[in-house]
Amino acid sequence: MNLNEMGVAAKRAAFTLGQLATSRKDQALNAMADALLVNQTQLLRANTQDMATAKVKQPMLDRLKLDEDRIQAMATGLRQVANLPDSIGNIDGGFTNEAGLVISKQRVPLGVIGMIYEARPNVTVDAAALCFKSGNAVILRGGKEAIRSNQALTKILQNVLKAQGLPEAAIQLVSDTSHETARALMQLNDYLDVLIPRGSGPFIKMVVQTATVPVIETGAGNCHIYVDESADLAMAVGIIVNAKTQRPSVCNAMEKLIINEKVAKSFLPAIAKALQPYQVELRGDSTAQKILPLITPATEADWGMEYNDYILAIKVVPDLASAISHINHYNTQHSEAIITNNYQHSVQFTQQIDAAVVYVNASTRFTDGFEFGFGAEIGISTQKLHARGPMGLRELTTTKYVVLGTGQIRE
Amino acid sequence: MNLNEMGVAAKRAAFTLGQLATSRKDQALNAMADALLVNQTQLLRANTQDMATAKVKQPMLDRLKLDEDRIQAMATGLRQVANLPDSIGNIDGGFTNEAGLVISKQRVPLGVIGMIYEARPNVTVDAAALCFKSGNAVILRGGKEAIRSNQALTKILQNVLKAQGLPEAAIQLVSDTSHETARALMQLNDYLDVLIPRGSGPFIKMVVQTATVPVIETGAGNCHIYVDESADLAMAVGIIVNAKTQRPSVCNAMEKLIINEKVAKSFLPAIAKALQPYQVELRGDSTAQKILPLITPATEADWGMEYNDYILAIKVVPDLASAISHINHYNTQHSEAIITNNYQHSVQFTQQIDAAVVYVNASTRFTDGFEFGFGAEIGISTQKLHARGPMGLRELTTTKYVVLGTGQIRE
Repeated sequence: MNLNEMGVAAKRAAFTLGQLATSRKDQALNAMADALLVNQTQLLRANTQDMATAKVKQPMLDRLKLDEDRIQAMATGLRQVANLPDSIGNIDGGFTNEAGLVISKQRVPLGVIGMIYEARPNVTVDAAALCFKSGNAVILRGGKEAIRSNQALTKILQNVLKAQGLPEAAIQLVSDTSHETARALMQLNDYLDVLIPRGSGPFIKMVVQTATVPVIETGAGNCHIYVDESADLAMAVGIIVNAKTQRPSVCNAMEKLIINEKVAKSFLPAIAKALQPYQVELRGDSTAQKILPLITPATEADWGMEYNDYILAIKVVPDLASAISHINHYNTQHSEAIITNNYQHSVQFTQQIDAAVVYVNASTRFTDGFEFGFGAEIGISTQKLHARGPMGLRELTTTKYVVLGTGQIRE
Repeated sequence: MNLNEMGVAAKRAAFTLGQLATSRKDQALNAMADALLVNQTQLLRANTQDMATAKVKQPMLDRLKLDEDRIQAMATGLRQVANLPDSIGNIDGGFTNEAGLVISKQRVPLGVIGMIYEARPNVTVDAAALCFKSGNAVILRGGKEAIRSNQALTKILQNVLKAQGLPEAAIQLVSDTSHETARALMQLNDYLDVLIPRGSGPFIKMVVQTATVPVIETGAGNCHIYVDESADLAMAVGIIVNAKTQRPSVCNAMEKLIINEKVAKSFLPAIAKALQPYQVELRGDSTAQKILPLITPATEADWGMEYNDYILAIKVVPDLASAISHINHYNTQHSEAIITNNYQHSVQFTQQIDAAVVYVNASTRFTDGFEFGFGAEIGISTQKLHARGPMGLRELTTTKYVVLGTGQIRE
């Protein structure tokens, strides 16, 4: 099928999905979990072929790999999505207008979602499950390295849909992994309501530049932690070690330490020592270099960079206002934290920082749909339209005004 | 100033606006209203020059024109916006997560909004007022025909900002009306958080195709009214005459009549007669032509077209399902209505029609921020992301998660 045919089929499937009772969706999701386990051998075979032909290095190769544990995890993920509440059909309030029209705002699916992502096959199942549960048809376009794994996964999910009397086109995969087809998908305005890219910063930027379909931008996180002069320094060390080293490759990991000059002298050696076991490379501005003479000088390019690695750049500032101004200039509006015991400073920081999530005295690593208690996550939005921060099932829906009248006309 | 400089200035202004108390914003809006009236002569002079050089025809010329009444209306509009509630700082709920973090979702401005529109100078004041009240900086780019009027208006508003100690860059106008600059504005991702186009269907389509900044698509309305076999025909006539003729040039006007074949024979002559005084051109499918032999045949192109004129195309369908399927295929997801006394049909129609606003027994002309009681309207969104249907002040805001911790780290 070409993209237009897939679009037509997806739109038709979306109409059916939008009317489906929650229990029928949950039943299908649980059957999909069973089917993944039943078809494990065939999945592993497809994945082995992908692994054999992929021209990528570790850690990319690791992300491509499927094994029994990972298939089990995907199945568990499907069952968890089945257990989540369904917001379709919810009424987000309403009112009666001057003319006596009774107007309610009802939650409905977005319609057809395009997902475009890089080499992790688990995204295929994850995204399919979340889109399906929220009543949306999805057109998936994964990386070319994972194509056989993705085809095998999609086939298993589609067989379940078929067996349950549901439209197979609810979950479709673009088999042609060429750039031209990717571009055409990003501009499939007649059929796609939204496009969600997942992957590296440059990949997402390319999608934003190319797409004419509305995009939800996810991902890039140049996250700062500001240590105020009134900070509990032991708490600050604990939070920074966690935010920097617990999983440095992810978007909510800490990338920059901004520190008040009044505590820099005592604090920087302490944090350097605490990070040493993790072999974190420290880079610093001139003041930081005076306190820690062995660190690498930070350049202008460092301040805007997302390392996703065991690297931390340090900037010393005279006051809170300078910290806020620096962060608002260089951040990616993802997650920012202040460590402070000064109440006024906590208020000023949360009010003036422009980001999806602003923390006082906590690790930036909590910016996550599961940690927030949403039970799922399709991505973390770093744009301001539609959704900001962790996006769960509700963020995959929109609203429709339903207006009940008795013959009203406009004067 | 070039666009980048305007972007820097706007971003700085947005920071100030985001922290401003409601009373200060309202005071400035009321002062702007006064200033428009005080500077009326100079405004009319600028507008006369625009009118003299504009190479456009009526009704475009009429939309370009300013007079005392229209300036008075703009001033009244500013005072109305001053009187509206401010949603900035509202808390849209919150929760405490498993780790004990207290998480609240606070309403904040979008940041910097780009408005790109065609020749009506009142949009300049309208958009400036709504963006300002919602704490956003705005960069306006109006049509070249209205450039002198827009410059005069912007200057007056900026002088008020200056006099009130507020950043003039909160409201900026792009003076260069070239296509190249318009394109650059649509791709000013470093500074613009959102782009809102207002104008004709083809104009908005061009913006969607060109922009890399997130766009809120507004406008196009190919609105249908379906007359069910159980409809109160007198009510149907009243609603159709209103929806088609009260103001045919606007996006919520009716464009298509879909009618059940069981009532077509009795109803079509009645509606043709009722529309006759308004000289509405009727077009119809083959069945409609048999009942009304004098009407123009409707072609395939008619079904998808937004006339914005005294034209109505008629399609006769065998049942509700056919009506729904036709509407979902050809509509622009704006406003759709059913006239019925059958409860089941009303439920099926509201559930299955994919549109921003779905009506039972009322005119589509009510899809409007003022009629909905929002007190203002920046446009009517026909896309599904962020906002759908009439957009008031609240739709010009986003949210930020504020997370208060006591040293939590992620396990």
